[in-house]
Parts: sequence; structure tokens; C-alpha cells
Amino acid sequence: MASVYRATYHLRSHKRDNLIEFVKSMLLTPFVLHSTTPPTAGDPITDVDREEAEIVRSVVQSKRPTTTQSQLSKEASVRESQAQAREYNIQRMAEILGNIEELITEHREMELRGLGKYSRLHRMVPTIGNFYTALPLKEAFLRSRDACMGISGRRYVPPSFNDIRRIMNSAQVMAGAHDLKLITFDGDMTLYDDGKNFTEDNPLTRLLIRLLQKDIHVAIVTAAGYGDKSEKYEGRLSGLLKGFEKARLSEEQVGRFFVLGGECNFLFRCSADDQYKLRFMSNEEYSSSSMRRNWQDEEIEKMLDIAQSNLEICIESMDLDATIIRKERAVGLVPKKKMTREQLDECALSSQLELLKFQKANNVNPADAPIPFCAFNGGNDCWVDIGNKFIGVQILQDYLDAKPSQTFHIGDQFLMTGNDIATRRACCTCWIINPDETQAILQELDDILWKDDDDSNNDQ
Amino acid sequence: MASVYRATYHLRSHKRDNLIEFVKSMLLTPFVLHSTTPPTAGDPITDVDREEAEIVRSVVQSKRPTTTQSQLSKEASVRESQAQAREYNIQRMAEILGNIEELITEHREMELRGLGKYSRLHRMVPTIGNFYTALPLKEAFLRSRDACMGISGRRYVPPSFNDIRRIMNSAQVMAGAHDLKLITFDGDMTLYDDGKNFTEDNPLTRLLIRLLQKDIHVAIVTAAGYGDKSEKYEGRLSGLLKGFEKARLSEEQVGRFFVLGGECNFLFRCSADDQYKLRFMSNEEYSSSSMRRNWQDEEIEKMLDIAQSNLEICIESMDLDATIIRKERAVGLVPKKKMTREQLDECALSSQLELLKFQKANNVNPADAPIPFCAFNGGNDCWVDIGNKFIGVQILQDYLDAKPSQTFHIGDQFLMTGNDIATRRACCTCWIINPDETQAILQELDDILWKDDDDSNNDQ
Amino acid sequence: MASVYRATYHLRSHKRDNLIEFVKSMLLTPFVLHSTTPPTAGDPITDVDREEAEIVRSVVQSKRPTTTQSQLSKEASVRESQAQAREYNIQRMAEILGNIEELITEHREMELRGLGKYSRLHRMVPTIGNFYTALPLKEAFLRSRDACMGISGRRYVPPSFNDIRRIMNSAQVMAGAHDLKLITFDGDMTLYDDGKNFTEDNPLTRLLIRLLQKDIHVAIVTAAGYGDKSEKYEGRLSGLLKGFEKARLSEEQVGRFFVLGGECNFLFRCSADDQYKLRFMSNEEYSSSSMRRNWQDEEIEKMLDIAQSNLEICIESMDLDATIIRKERAVGLVPKKKMTREQLDECALSSQLELLKFQKANNVNPADAPIPFCAFNGGNDCWVDIGNKFIGVQILQDYLDAKPSQTFHIGDQFLMTGNDIATRRACCTCWIINPDETQAILQELDDILWKDDDDSNNDQ
Amino acid sequence: MASVYRATYHLRSHKRDNLIEFVKSMLLTPFVLHSTTPPTAGDPITDVDREEAEIVRSVVQSKRPTTTQSQLSKEASVRESQAQAREYNIQRMAEILGNIEELITEHREMELRGLGKYSRLHRMVPTIGNFYTALPLKEAFLRSRDACMGISGRRYVPPSFNDIRRIMNSAQVMAGAHDLKLITFDGDMTLYDDGKNFTEDNPLTRLLIRLLQKDIHVAIVTAAGYGDKSEKYEGRLSGLLKGFEKARLSEEQVGRFFVLGGECNFLFRCSADDQYKLRFMSNEEYSSSSMRRNWQDEEIEKMLDIAQSNLEICIESMDLDATIIRKERAVGLVPKKKMTREQLDECALSSQLELLKFQKANNVNPADAPIPFCAFNGGNDCWVDIGNKFIGVQILQDYLDAKPSQTFHIGDQFLMTGNDIATRRACCTCWIINPDETQAILQELDDILWKDDDDSNNDQ
Repeated sequence: MASVYRATYHLRSHKRDNLIEFVKSMLLTPFVLHSTTPPTAGDPITDVDREEAEIVRSVVQSKRPTTTQSQLSKEASVRESQAQAREYNIQRMAEILGNIEELITEHREMELRGLGKYSRLHRMVPTIGNFYTALPLKEAFLRSRDACMGISGRRYVPPSFNDIRRIMNSAQVMAGAHDLKLITFDGDMTLYDDGKNFTEDNPLTRLLIRLLQKDIHVAIVTAAGYGDKSEKYEGRLSGLLKGFEKARLSEEQVGRFFVLGGECNFLFRCSADDQYKLRFMSNEEYSSSSMRRNWQDEEIEKMLDIAQSNLEICIESMDLDATIIRKERAVGLVPKKKMTREQLDECALSSQLELLKFQKANNVNPADAPIPFCAFNGGNDCWVDIGNKFIGVQILQDYLDAKPSQTFHIGDQFLMTGNDIATRRACCTCWIINPDETQAILQELDDILWKDDDDSNNDQ
Repeated sequence: MASVYRATYHLRSHKRDNLIEFVKSMLLTPFVLHSTTPPTAGDPITDVDREEAEIVRSVVQSKRPTTTQSQLSKEASVRESQAQAREYNIQRMAEILGNIEELITEHREMELRGLGKYSRLHRMVPTIGNFYTALPLKEAFLRSRDACMGISGRRYVPPSFNDIRRIMNSAQVMAGAHDLKLITFDGDMTLYDDGKNFTEDNPLTRLLIRLLQKDIHVAIVTAAGYGDKSEKYEGRLSGLLKGFEKARLSEEQVGRFFVLGGECNFLFRCSADDQYKLRFMSNEEYSSSSMRRNWQDEEIEKMLDIAQSNLEICIESMDLDATIIRKERAVGLVPKKKMTREQLDECALSSQLELLKFQKANNVNPADAPIPFCAFNGGNDCWVDIGNKFIGVQILQDYLDAKPSQTFHIGDQFLMTGNDIATRRACCTCWIINPDETQAILQELDDILWKDDDDSNNDQ
Repeated sequence: MASVYRATYHLRSHKRDNLIEFVKSMLLTPFVLHSTTPPTAGDPITDVDREEAEIVRSVVQSKRPTTTQSQLSKEASVRESQAQAREYNIQRMAEILGNIEELITEHREMELRGLGKYSRLHRMVPTIGNFYTALPLKEAFLRSRDACMGISGRRYVPPSFNDIRRIMNSAQVMAGAHDLKLITFDGDMTLYDDGKNFTEDNPLTRLLIRLLQKDIHVAIVTAAGYGDKSEKYEGRLSGLLKGFEKARLSEEQVGRFFVLGGECNFLFRCSADDQYKLRFMSNEEYSSSSMRRNWQDEEIEKMLDIAQSNLEICIESMDLDATIIRKERAVGLVPKKKMTREQLDECALSSQLELLKFQKANNVNPADAPIPFCAFNGGNDCWVDIGNKFIGVQILQDYLDAKPSQTFHIGDQFLMTGNDIATRRACCTCWIINPDETQAILQELDDILWKDDDDSNNDQ
Repeated sequence: MASVYRATYHLRSHKRDNLIEFVKSMLLTPFVLHSTTPPTAGDPITDVDREEAEIVRSVVQSKRPTTTQSQLSKEASVRESQAQAREYNIQRMAEILGNIEELITEHREMELRGLGKYSRLHRMVPTIGNFYTALPLKEAFLRSRDACMGISGRRYVPPSFNDIRRIMNSAQVMAGAHDLKLITFDGDMTLYDDGKNFTEDNPLTRLLIRLLQKDIHVAIVTAAGYGDKSEKYEGRLSGLLKGFEKARLSEEQVGRFFVLGGECNFLFRCSADDQYKLRFMSNEEYSSSSMRRNWQDEEIEKMLDIAQSNLEICIESMDLDATIIRKERAVGLVPKKKMTREQLDECALSSQLELLKFQKANNVNPADAPIPFCAFNGGNDCWVDIGNKFIGVQILQDYLDAKPSQTFHIGDQFLMTGNDIATRRACCTCWIINPDETQAILQELDDILWKDDDDSNNDQ
């Protein structure tokens, strides 16, 4: 039976995040045991019950002429017991999140001693990655009214993937905010809707500007690759760049804003002196460009050939109506007729495996391959890029002297067929699912970063 | 271990369709065994492999000056073995779908003999519902190029929920088309996007008109309840009604078009004589209105009180920012701030259980309760309606003398917190997820219905 | 995915006990979170670690010449933290068992109000049966040194089926002991090894005698059916009967000892006056024999024909080397060559289903069938008996005026292919797996029953 | 949900064999789809059904005076359709086993090319080990009447772990018999019951002698470690040694019989010249003894200290009544009061992890540790041995010049807490569960090995 499930499990592992699933499973016990059904409504029919129903009704309709004292106290006690059950539930969930925090801390300590694979957390989640900071999950849960009440107040719908994901994001922000040096963002679905541009009215502009004002470097690390041509990037980001201009950010401030296209291949920096435009940085301008310089053109061509061949096989096998686009360091499959998620995942996964096999990679992780690459489902198309955001973030970290624990990456593609997942090897990450969530995270970050100022202002 | 899973299973059963999951699981075996990795690309590095890589490359780049004869045959054989693997895979999947067809047929026969719960299918899917027709799953799979190639051509992404759902829809259309008398539709997300109106350019207009021309009754059965006021419905459906007018449908033809609002409470009929408007039908006009006449007002009030009380508890428990709206035969929770899916499901599920408990329903199925009701997650709000689409469809069937096997319902809400699921007790159903899929289904239906005409035309 | 598992689940449900699995799953969370790996041994290699290793070694070898003060305190703190972790683990597990107690109590209350299927426990374990008493699981866990230490002291092996089963047995004994009137036992594997006799040196003799001396009725309810001939039963139980004689039990005392053969068909009572032999009781001697009197011979014959036909099909299908034995109220399949568990289960399950189908039973539970029966895997053979232990226990309860909450049944066959499971509908049960466990349970019971005497003795 | 299961899965992985579970899961589909319920018995009640029931009855009772022609043909057709269903089921199961054979062959080929982790089998069973031969699973299934009929004839009990295990054993024997050079056996539960001796009447004697006569080396590789003293081994094996004597095996023949005690530490060889006694072989007599010579005494002592310390912690944590026994190259925990399987597994697993951690082993597999060891649940006790059967088998292979594909190991301890599992890294294995199964396997082997002789005899 194990393996009936395992079979399915492995076949669907590209759609999972094991740590989140683990936390979810741990919260199931208090959910089952403490999410008390309120003993109010719903039971009537017996005479006693009918009486209760009357109370319920009178409460609801707020015209309680006949409400006796005993009825009122009954109603009050119902609400009270409900509140107590929730309180208890919150306590237990907080306690469990606290225990998981400890498992993470223990794992980090054992990692330092080279014993990471013997931690208890590793035993439960063998695919567990790096933790560059501790994660105050308990505090994140208790401090978020939404999380705390939203989850513990439910009686029928258990803690979900999205519930846990949001708590982990908050915990990450709380843990890393004070030491933050660099924050990188995915573009589509993270800063703006898929395929759209960054418009002037985007509420993120204000928050990004405040980050730059706090001496934090901000970079957009995106799959979109237009070579060394800045115009296209400037076009898509015009709303943001105009925002910089309006806010009259200094040359130093906007100089902290970067765009890294083609995952890690084309680096641009903003300049106030140059009318808030983006300037391409040549390889010579930053030594970390060496990270991609040892990739020989011949090998890259071979890899793109393999990828292209595989995508062509996909078109034939699945009888797709799509075209192949070959770029300098990428090859993509772009459908003429809408493809299903399953088909795009198939294209991404098969390309990934073929390229790992081609490189005889020891580890089934594209980030570890001799020539790192990224084969991903872009939502409406599938791309295979040479290089990936793991390299991209490292290039920026090296250039800006930011440690993994001082770097955040915010993106929406953290499944195995996504192109943000590679950053997990380089820095702290927040997994969002739309620009609204990015905004919420930046607001949390803003509150922490500027709190000291407010506090010191208050002190005066 | 069983129950670790069961615990979770029961807690998430509102998000499942057991028959689809069963079919999915059965298709896993051929997927695992026959989805051959094509022996082409990806292996290189050894000398032999490098040679292969060269072939791949030359094929890809279509400039094959050095391609020797042996290379060409190698390449051809690669493609051939790939094609064979797919062929074999298709055969096995078709065979399994054929076997499942037989299980369904056996189950239907045993149902007739009162032994339904002893069928093999019932043993595997104890929550299995009614089948009003056989389901030619195999033929549906083989005849759909998308299904057949799209699924069997995948090597990494196994048959999914949506794959199976679409095959079952096609099979249902194929099985019931020739005897179809009545087809009912959900509104939002089925005929138009959520909260939008039916616009003039909606491609469904043409298809719906052709149904009316084929003497098939068409009804929109929707949760939206505006009492006996036809204006609101006419407003939302103006594009469609104009379409009728433009097509100059006869009084008889448009008289086959109905709108049933409030799940089953307010019936309207279209009239060409009355400028293609909707006319409210009083209870006296159709005897089947009796189905909802034995619900006593007092009991209905009590149920709405219970529901309202529960929704108020939800607001308090989950600390929601929302208001309660009470209507004649419904009560709803409408959020001021976007709610998560989990929160809306919680509201729907808890209301459902409270009302079942109140009625001491023997069966945990709202369609079987003494006073049927429907508590559902409307996507952005949660409503509890007295009556449901099970009653709604039955009223129409009774009025139009259509049997379950002669009736289709098409909708997008077939999860336990949806309001289309109740129709499964009354007729054949198709589960779509957006208006594009509705269009695809109607096109399939159209092809079958008008094929005979085309054939007879050809005969002449 | 759900259904991949469900498929398997349903196919193996005859090997599960859902309540035990549920409890097991709930205990997994504290096990995972609190079973701390002791920070002692195992890490060495770094210098600090090597030092630790030295401490470990010196402790182990108990020759600690060089042990410094700091080392000693280190070692002490290791043991202390280990003890604390266990303590915490015990607390959490006890708390969870306490919560499950409450779920059971809530379920019992809702059952009384006819709302059993709306209890939280029912939602998690839909197949949940009756609870004739509350179950003090927490106290049972904490009072048993074995359970408490044995489970909470483990770091790698989580709470198991057998762990929970034993806790539930203890809780049942604690809950029901004081009000106990009747205790019934399965024979083989419960009182003596499979196929063996009750020998004189059986340690259970003493404990059974003490039950009779405490005015508790004792009955052996067994599948073994030898008609009204007492000799065979006397032969198998000779050791016990001799024990009665040696203990010079009074006529009244041994008159409380019964044997009920053929599940519920042949009743015998012990008599001191008759040299501690068993005396067959005719139907006229007890009115409850009517429970089996409305079974018409013709129907019984038909059922045995169906069963026999099915067993013959099993022999042919599985190519078994076995013979069919037909008795008055039973038909059995007895192998000439050892059969596997799977084969015997197949025989039992298929017979069960055929007979339910034949009777068009509404409920897939043999105890509810018009003519109750029992098709079971006897370990080395398979039998289909007309009547079952549900009837058997009820006959005794009726004759002796014992309520379900005042009756215990102890047996080893509580899986779906066992013949003890039917008693769950009639009384409290303890599921043991060998005579040693029966002895342990009777000892626990003895301690409670005779404690008052000891206490009152002490008082004097 | 995935991880709820995974949590449990990882916690119970020591009780699983992933390949067997995988095969089991693949066979579930045909089992579900093709195990037709015979349409005979069980349905009656309607008139038609009653007629059928009569037929059934008449068939059963074999007195068919009234059987009309139509009835007879009906009955015949029932049996026929039943036979057809089974036939179809056998075909599908055989086909699937054939497909799995191909997956294994593909995996072996990819292993040779260094791409093992990219095989399809590896994707489904990531913990998959080595295959030293192909495995003719299909033929093994079809040739075994028991397997074939026993499994395919079942309608309610799906293919089980034991079913698959036996098929795999047969396939292994069929694949390796002709090239066999060395066969090694575990002692307890493999050659004789737990703790018992090899008696004179053991039916295995004859089969082992015939192996020696066929020039095959036979060795018993056991945990039992008595240093270089042969008497104890001779005592336990006296029945076998006497058998050699009686059969008057030549010096050369008995010289092919070895005993290797302490997993791999003490080697003995049988000698006819020395009255069929066992003679200890000093390290100098075989160069492969070097495999254990680079283990430094100091390190070994440290490891045994760690192990002992851990076992002492187990005693304290679980409040066990047990003593520690320290030997030259082993330390064991021997209970005074029976321990549960869970407790023994805990002792073994915790010792295993502590020693891996101590050695900072990269791989969580004791066979790969710098100093290999074996921590195992011995059924009634728990032992930690320095060295393991992986080394043991390799020493013999090296001395006797036998390749992995020419070596079989037969044992009963292939779970993660067993001491036979280590041999999987060295040779072909057969997993039996009692001496009867060992006998069955040797008989299969015997049939193959001596068949040629018989054939050649027949030729003459």
C-alpha cells in the first residue's frame, strides 16, 4: 500500500512542497481534536432542542421580548465555550509551530556540524533544503490576526497549504528584516500580472522606493531575456522607473536598483543621471560574471540542441500546436493553441531530466548540474534557459557583498517546474501567488524596517 | 497508517470526486509501465553517446551534411520506437477505460435488481451515485485527439483529474445526445465569467439557438434569486435574448427557453410574442411547483435562522469582515474584504452540517433532507438557499416530461460545497470549469445532433 | 491520488480497525515533535565530539579515573534533558488521549439524541461502532508503566496498532469492571493455543474461578459446534472443569459458567452436582432461544447451499486442495495442504458477500442480515456458520439479565474476517492476540474487583 | 496530505520493501478490473433469481432430477465465464510482470552507463538496489501454479506482499541457477526454527548435500559469534554434519561447506578427514580477511561503547528489564522479560543511527559506513555487531572467486532492522520467512540443477 501511494507521490512530487506539507500534517492533530463544534444551532427537534432553537432565533432576530434570564445565560455560555475552544486551539497550534521552529533550529545546528542528514527534521522531510535564518513560526502565527483567527476559527476546513505558506513568509520576513541587504523579485505574477507591465498606479512602487531609501538593494531577476537591450525592460518597468523619477531618488539610491534578465545572463543598473534609465553592465564591470563565463559555447549549444530536440518530441508526442523559439541562451515552446498545465509541466519536466541525464548530473537538481540551467513551465509557455536564478542571485550577492541570510528572493514559481525554486540554494525566499501577496509582505517588511525610526521619533 | 490518511481524507473529502479519482488511479498502472522514455537525447557524454548527440543536433538544426545512412536509420528507429510506445500506451488506457465502462454497466444492472451496493464499482467507490446512461469512456477517449494524444504522449505527468473529467463529459454527451429533451445550465462560470453578464458576442448564443431549433428545451438554473422580477434576469441575459431575436426564433422555439432562479424557486419562460422577454410563471401554471409547496413558512424561517446564526458564528470565529444578507428564501454572507477559499468553504460546510443536524437528516446529503437546501461557496461569497437544483431540475423535468436519462445539467460547482452537485440525483451531468469548456461540450453535442441532417443531405 | 489510496484502502479494509488507526494517527504529532534524540552519543569525530565520546565511554565502562567535574555535569545534563523530553512527550500523549476520550463521550451523548452521525468522531471514523461505556484512555495510558514508558521512551518507532489496542483494552476494563455481570470468551487463541485444549496448568483457571466467586457469569462462546453433545466440550475444557472441582466451587458458583457452541446454537451449563460436567440446555429452558427460532430450516438450507457453492468455486478458482464439510448449521472448507492467509480471507470474504447479497441485506454487515451468520477465517480453515456471536452474547444477556454495558467479550478475531467482531454490537469488547494477553486483562480486572475487599480488610 | 502520509511513511520505512510494494501496486489495476464476481450464487429472491438458486442448489447437492437442459447450460456458462475472467486476469498480471521485468532490464542497462538514477524504475522506487541478474517475473508467475491460480483466482483479496515476495524468489532462482557458484544461508528461521538446532531429520540436509555434489559452495553466514571455537557451531549444526557423514561426502565435497560466524568475523570449513568437523581458518589462510583487518581496535571499541551507551539509554527510556552483553566484536541487549517488536526495533534503529552519526556516514546505510556494522532486531533480542553480512559474503566470494551474479544469499531478515539486508549489496538474494520456504526454494533450484542430468539420462 505504501507504494501505491509512493508511485503516485513520486509522479506528482513536482507539485509539492514537502516542508509545507509536513507542517500541515502536524497541525492536523490539534485541528481534529480541538476544533469544537459549537453546541448551539442545528440540533433542535426535541422539545429541549426547540427551546434552544427559539433562543437562537431570538438572538438572530434581535427582538428578544420573551428571552428569560436562563436563556440569556445559556446563549452566553454557548459563545463562551466556543471562544474557549478557539483559545485552546490557538495555543496548541502555536505550541506545535514552536516545536517545528525547534526542529529547524536543531537541523541548522546539525548542518553546521556536518550532521544535517541526521537531524529529526531531515528524517521527516528528506528533501529539506537550507535555512539561512531561524524561522519564528509561532510568533508569525500569533502576530497575524488573519492566520491565527482564520485558521483556528475553522471547524471543517483544516490548515491548508496556503495557510502554512503565508505563515512561513511572515516568519521569514520577521527573521531576516533587520539584516537585509538585497531583495530580489521575480517579475510576472510577483510584481504585476502575467504578461502585463509594471504600471504607474502599482501600489508596490511606494514600497520598493522605501526599500531603496533604507539602503537595501533591489533587483528584478527574471526569465525574460532580451540580450543587452535595455529598452524592452524599460518598457515593461516604465511605471516603476517613472515612480523613481517622481520620488526624485538620488543617483546613489536608484543605483541600488538592478534588473537581471535571462535568469542570470544580462545585468542592468538604474541611473538617475541617465534619466532613470537602465544601463547594461558588461561582464568586465563585475567579477561575479565569471560564474557564467566558464560555460563553453559549444556545450551550451549542445544543451540547447538536446532541449530543442526534446521539445520537438513533446510537440509530436502530444500532438501540440506550438512553435519552437531559439534564443542565444534559451529555447522555448510557445503554443498557438492554449495548452493545459499538464502539457506544459510535461515539457518542462522532460526537458529537465534530459539535460540532467546529458550532463550525467549526480544529483537530480538542475542547480547542481555542471552547467546550471532552468527548464520551467511559464504558465502559458515552456522555456529552457541556460543558467538559472540560483546563479543570478549569487552574482548579485557577490557584487553587492550580501550573504545568503541577508538576501530575500520573492517569487511565485517554487514548484519543481518553476524557475524561482533554484534561489532556495542561494538565499531566504518568500513564496507568493500574486502581486497582492507581494504587497502584503513588503508592507510587513516596511513596518519592521521603519519602526525604529518611528520609535526614535516618538522618543524625541 | 490507513487512518492518518483517512483522517486527512475525510477532512478534505469536500474537495474530491471519488469516481474521477478512481479512474485516475486505474490509469496509473499503464502510465507507469508504458510511458517509455524516448531513448534519444539526454544521455551523451560517452563517445557513443556523443555520436548520438551529434545526430540529435543535426536533426534539430536540419543541416545534415554528414549524416550517414546508419545515423539516419538510428534516428528513424528512435522515433518509431517512441511511436510504438505511445500506441501501446493508448491501447492499454483504452482497454482500462473499457473495463471501467463495464463496471459501470454492471453497477447499473445490479442497481435495477436492488443490489447496487454489491456491485464491484460500489465496493471501490462507496459514494458512487446514479448513472442514467451507460458511459462510453473508451470511445470518448479514442475519439478525442486531445485526450488520446495529450495523455498518452506524456511521460512525466500522469493522467490528471481534469483529463478524466473531460473524458467523462465527452462520454456523457455521446451517450445521451440522441435522446436529449432538456438541457439545463448553471449561470456564472458556465455561460459567462463570474459576476459578468451574457454579452452579445458570446459564442454560446449560436449553439444554444441550435439546441432550441432541434426541439430541445434549454433552461438556466441559477442560485441568483430576484423573486418574480424578470428585469434583473433579462439584464444579465440580454445578449442571449437579443440573439434569439436576431435569429427570429418562433414563439414555439423560444418557448422552450426557461430561467429558474433561486435554485428552484422562481420560474420564467421566454416569449417571442412579448419581445423576447422573460415571463414569470405562477405556481398555478405548473403542477410540479408543488414540490416546494409543502415546505411550511415557519420551518423555512427556522432553517434560515439556524443558517444565519451559524454564519454569524463564522464571522466571529474567523474574525471576518463581512455582512449577512437575508432574503425571502436565502441567507448569505458577503465579505467586505476578500475571503480565502478555506474561509468560504468553512462557512458553507458548517451551514450544511448545522441544517442537516437540525432536520435530523438520516443521510448526510442535503438533497435528501426533509426540506432540501443548498449551502454553497459562491466563489466570493457564501449562500444558504432553501431548495436546490435537484428540485429545480425535477420541476422542469416534470413540467416538460423529460426523464433523467433525457436531461443534462452543465455546471462548474460539483464539489461538496457547490450548488450544482445536487443535480446528480436528477439527471446526467457535465462538469465544466469555464465557459470555454461549455462551448466545447455544446459543439460536440451539436456535431452529433446535426450530423444526421448532414448525412441525409449528403444522401441526396 | 485520494482514490489510489482509497482503492487500496477498500480492498484491505478487512484488515483494519478504523478507531485504532485514528488514535494512532493522532499520536503521531507528539511522537514526531517531542521524541528528542538524546544529544549524547553518536556525534564524535570533531575534537569536541571526541571529548564527549570519551565521557560516554567512561560512563559505559564505569571506570572513570579522569572524569572531571565538567564532564560529569555534562553527562548528568544529557540524561536530564532526555528525561525531560520523555516527560513532555508523556504529557502530550496523555493530553491527546484525553481529548479522544472527550470525542467518545461527545459521540455517546449525540447518539442518545439520535445525532450520532453528526459527532466529530463519526466524521473522522464513519464506521465507528457503539460505546457502551466511556473509555478512560488517558488514565489507562498513564497507569500502565508499560504503555507509558514503552511508547513515550521510543524515538524511532511510533505508536503502533498493538500499543493502542492494549491501551483501549485497559481503558475498557477500568470503565466496566465495577458493574460487570457477564464475561464471555472466545476459545482458541483466547483461552488456549489454536487447536489445543484447556490444560490443568493453565494460569487462567485461577482467574476465572475468582470471577465466578465474585458472582460474575462466565461463558465460553465458540464457533466449535458439536450439537448437543457435551463430551467434546468437556474434553477440550477438562483442565478448567477439574480446576472448578479442585476449588470446590458451589453449585451456585459453577452454575454461572456456560458454554455456547456453534456461535449461538448449543447452550451448556456447568453443574457441581453433576461432577462438574456440562449439561445441554434445551430451547425450552430459556426464552431467548427464540432469537434463533424464527430462522426457517428451508432458508437456512438455502443459505448453506449458497455458501457451499461459493466455497466450491473458491476451491476451483484458486486450485485449492481442500474438502468441504457440511454440518447442521455450518459449512466449512478444510484444507489438506496449508493455505495462505490470503486464500482463507478470500474464502471468508466471498462467502460473506454472497450471503449478504442473497439476503439483499441493506447494510454490508452480517450482524444486521435477516438471518445473521458468520463467515470467518479460522486460521487454518474457513467456516460459514448460521447465527453468530452477536446472537450468542444476546442470548446470554437476555437469560442472565445483563446489559451491554455490564457485559465483556474477550476474543482474538476482531477483523472483518473474524467471528468475534459481531459481539461489538452487543457488548464491551477486549481484543487480545494470545492467551497471555487474556491473562493480563483478567489480572487487571481481578485487581479492581478484589481491591475493595483488600481495602475493606485493610480498614479493619 | 502528501506529507501526512510521508510522515508516517518515513517513520515506518523500516518495515517496508519498496520494490515489492511497487509491484504490488502495479498489480492492483488488473485485480480491480478483472477479478469478476461470478454471476452465480448470492443474488436470488426475485423469481428468476430463485430459479438460479435452485440450480445452484441442485449442483451443490448433486441430485439433479429436475435439471432441465437450459439449466445445465446456464450452470455451464457460469463456470465458463468465471474461467474466462480468471484467464484474462492471468494474462494481464503476466503482462504487467513482464513490463516490470523490462523496467528492471532497462535500469540495469542504464546502471552500466552510469545513468541508473535516470531509469524509470529509479524514479518510481528511488531506494532501488542492485540487480545482478535479470528477473523473469512473468515466467516465474506463470510457471508457479500456486502463484498463478492462487492470486488470479481471488476476487476480494488483492495481490499481497507475500505473493510478490515468493514470485520474486522464484524468478531469482530461475535467473541464477545455471551459473551458481556459492549459496549462503542465514541460520535461525532460515535453516531451523528460532533458537533451535539443525536436527537430523531436517529435510534440508538432502538438498544441501545435493548442492555440494553439484560443486556449489554452501555457507552459513550467521550473527551467532562464538569466537574461534568450533564446538558451539558443531553443536547447533550436528544434524547437518551427521548428514554429510552418512552421505559419505568426499573431502572435496564437504570442503565446499563453510560457516561464517559473527556476521563476517569467524570463518570455519568442514573437513571429512577430520570426522566432518568444522575447522577454524586463521586470517592468514585467506587474503580476503583483510576486508576486516583495517578496522582498528580502538575505533571498534569506541563504536561498541557508543552502541552500549545507546542500548543503556534504551533500557532507561523504555524502562526495560534487560541486560547488556558485551562480546569481542558485538554488544547485545538481552531481555529478561519478553519485549515487544516495537521495543526491539527501537533498540536496533537507534543504535544504527547513532553509529552512522558517529562515523559521519554520508549515506544512511550501514553497509557504506567506514567501519561496516549491523544493528538488528534478532526477534527476541537486539545486537550490534561490528562487520556485517555484506562483508561476510564478500569474503567468501573473494576466497571462492564467485561473482555477485553467481552468489545467492537466503535469509529471513531483509527489513531495515534485519541483518540479512546488507547482503543485497553483494549478491542475489531470496527473502524467505520460514524453513519451509527455504526448502521450497532449494527444491526449485534442485529441479533446475539436476534437470540436465535427467535430460541427458533420458537421452541415452
